[in-house]
Amino acid sequence: MFNVAILGYGTVGSGVFKVINDNADVLKKFVKDDVNVKYVLDLREFPGNPVEKVLVHDYDIILKDDEVKCVVEVMGGIEPANTFVRKAIASGKSVCTSNKELVAKYGAEILALAKENNVSFLFEASVGGGIPLLRAINESLTADNFDSVAGILNGTTNYILTKMSTEDLSFDEVLKRAQEKGYAERNPEADVEGYDACRKIAIISSLITGKQVNFEDISTEGISHISKEDIYYSRNMNMPIKLLGLMKKIDGVVYAMVAPFMLGEEHSLRNVDGVYNAVNFHGDMLGNVMFYGKGAGSLPTASAVVSDVVEIAKNGGKNIDIPWDKECVSLGDMASFKAKFFVRLEGADLDDKVKSIFNGVTFAEHLQGETAFITEEEFSAPELQSKLEGFKVLSTIRIAE
Amino acid sequence: MFNVAILGYGTVGSGVFKVINDNADVLKKFVKDDVNVKYVLDLREFPGNPVEKVLVHDYDIILKDDEVKCVVEVMGGIEPANTFVRKAIASGKSVCTSNKELVAKYGAEILALAKENNVSFLFEASVGGGIPLLRAINESLTADNFDSVAGILNGTTNYILTKMSTEDLSFDEVLKRAQEKGYAERNPEADVEGYDACRKIAIISSLITGKQVNFEDISTEGISHISKEDIYYSRNMNMPIKLLGLMKKIDGVVYAMVAPFMLGEEHSLRNVDGVYNAVNFHGDMLGNVMFYGKGAGSLPTASAVVSDVVEIAKNGGKNIDIPWDKECVSLGDMASFKAKFFVRLEGADLDDKVKSIFNGVTFAEHLQGETAFITEEEFSAPELQSKLEGFKVLSTIRIAE
Repeated sequence: MFNVAILGYGTVGSGVFKVINDNADVLKKFVKDDVNVKYVLDLREFPGNPVEKVLVHDYDIILKDDEVKCVVEVMGGIEPANTFVRKAIASGKSVCTSNKELVAKYGAEILALAKENNVSFLFEASVGGGIPLLRAINESLTADNFDSVAGILNGTTNYILTKMSTEDLSFDEVLKRAQEKGYAERNPEADVEGYDACRKIAIISSLITGKQVNFEDISTEGISHISKEDIYYSRNMNMPIKLLGLMKKIDGVVYAMVAPFMLGEEHSLRNVDGVYNAVNFHGDMLGNVMFYGKGAGSLPTASAVVSDVVEIAKNGGKNIDIPWDKECVSLGDMASFKAKFFVRLEGADLDDKVKSIFNGVTFAEHLQGETAFITEEEFSAPELQSKLEGFKVLSTIRIAE
Repeated sequence: MFNVAILGYGTVGSGVFKVINDNADVLKKFVKDDVNVKYVLDLREFPGNPVEKVLVHDYDIILKDDEVKCVVEVMGGIEPANTFVRKAIASGKSVCTSNKELVAKYGAEILALAKENNVSFLFEASVGGGIPLLRAINESLTADNFDSVAGILNGTTNYILTKMSTEDLSFDEVLKRAQEKGYAERNPEADVEGYDACRKIAIISSLITGKQVNFEDISTEGISHISKEDIYYSRNMNMPIKLLGLMKKIDGVVYAMVAPFMLGEEHSLRNVDGVYNAVNFHGDMLGNVMFYGKGAGSLPTASAVVSDVVEIAKNGGKNIDIPWDKECVSLGDMASFKAKFFVRLEGADLDDKVKSIFNGVTFAEHLQGETAFITEEEFSAPELQSKLEGFKVLSTIRIAE
């Protein structure tokens, strides 16, 4: 019997409870033993729910029980998750978590702690929900130098952008609907301003480089400024707008950013719609490899968490090495990162003026009273800004080809 | 130092030699030790090539060298690969291979042998080239019951179908060009008749079920009968034709097949073009998860092989358990497997007659002298055949939605 304790009986926690119980036979095939939820920690009561039998309100009961080999942290947020996780590890228990805030901030530290205590710290579900990304980085993508990672890492924003495009609605209208349906939080800032995607690309970048990429250093732009007009052009030009988390290595310098991009015809993420997530890696030997699936939701996320439990159980609870040192990566200056741009300017009949400034542009079919085009050259954001001095700029969106 | 011997210095073998040497630092990050190619076995000489220094012609030298912990079999074909692999395992060496024929036929047996000898047998590169599929099944997709797998598993046929569609060419014309470019073998039968995809879906199905799925039992249809006219309709209806390897579990019965399908608007594999491969898994908790990448080629395949070497080295050469028993899965009768069909009949003005026979069809824009439609109901192949009695059938292709 491999005993597990789940911290938090919310969306993900209840999913983990269900997956372990409903798919006991699948787990046994891999673990060669029964996986058992011995405790669920939650401050609330759940009368009539099967979880009642294993519900506890005091974390010390779990910490002191040597039969518990693995603690599943699915509470979210930094505290008390951080304290709980470190206590579990110090008590000789392995931990798996879906908590991207915790992993982005303290991943390297907690991994070091786990190594010292010869237990494991796994966090597959913290990025890409049910998509098996992180274990792939550590156990499959182990023969390549990766110079580029691009991901659609947030389901809420992808759902909003998809709906804006297919139903010709504004950001605010779609957000309101998404909130009504439970696809977006009542406070949607973490999603729509890109903070969630930022933590996820920080975790991926840390695993790819094997060093600490601080999420605070990552230039992050959300989608709340994307207008109906931007979407109109994107549809007309057949270049969907997606919020991308990006990591690039150029001449040994690591760049990372989160921003909305217009995707060209050949881009491998252009058909990733709705609540789906996907991440594309480019390696020196493999070329492009892409993973695609549900980036959120109770059961997909829970399935990823439980796959961590299975790995921990298979490995007898001992340390699974994940190369991620505390040493920080000094990220390249995003101001120097160049891209082609889609530009909208206020005012009609600006074509000649625009042509005189840029070495080649492709004009879109202008909406009334404005001029819209894609630059053929790549610019950094400040370079573009200085080129556009004197114009009233309605919007600029980077292009990813 | 972790010493490796490579059997065969062909396309994949020379790639493995290159990846291990060029990306030594990446490997060291994961293995925490140097990975060294101590021997390359090949009957040929390679004067002036760096491989000369480690080239041997006698397998016994490798078998008798206790410093060699891992043998990389990339010769292909059943013999002598099969004998060589078993001898390596009996000598206490782990083995990794890209050899799908060997794995499809003897995977379960060789895994049992590896377990007895407490060494590993890994074969990531045998399916999907560089796409990290198989380790995902065994180490990430471990919390779900999978009721369906669909894959584009052969790059040559996908390249041919893509080119037929984009350049309006016949099968024979594209095949000829592909052979000239080295994308297709001079004897293309294994690819174009689906035998290669059949072995790959057999391996995937065996890993998913944990039992032996014999490739000989899998109903296999290739693409050599796909005509320019079929492609014309597929383009007009925006339903690309792809050669799919399929596994389905329905009411506990496992079905597997390889056949060309027309893919509907929502199908996750419809945009997988050219030499790319992709596999979609559907699980009871995860929903859809898809993997996409280069399914062939020296370096992508070699990268997957080397990721196996890394796993073996990380694990100290000891057995990595892969649940795949020798017990055979008795596959469901494919004759009972139902799908909607695209149908082309010789003769114009058959619409009313067709309507009187089927409960709902969608007509395509007919080419001259024929009648083409998609059935709204699902049929087994024999059911469709009996419905179409009396007509001159030009082609029938299953639909996957």
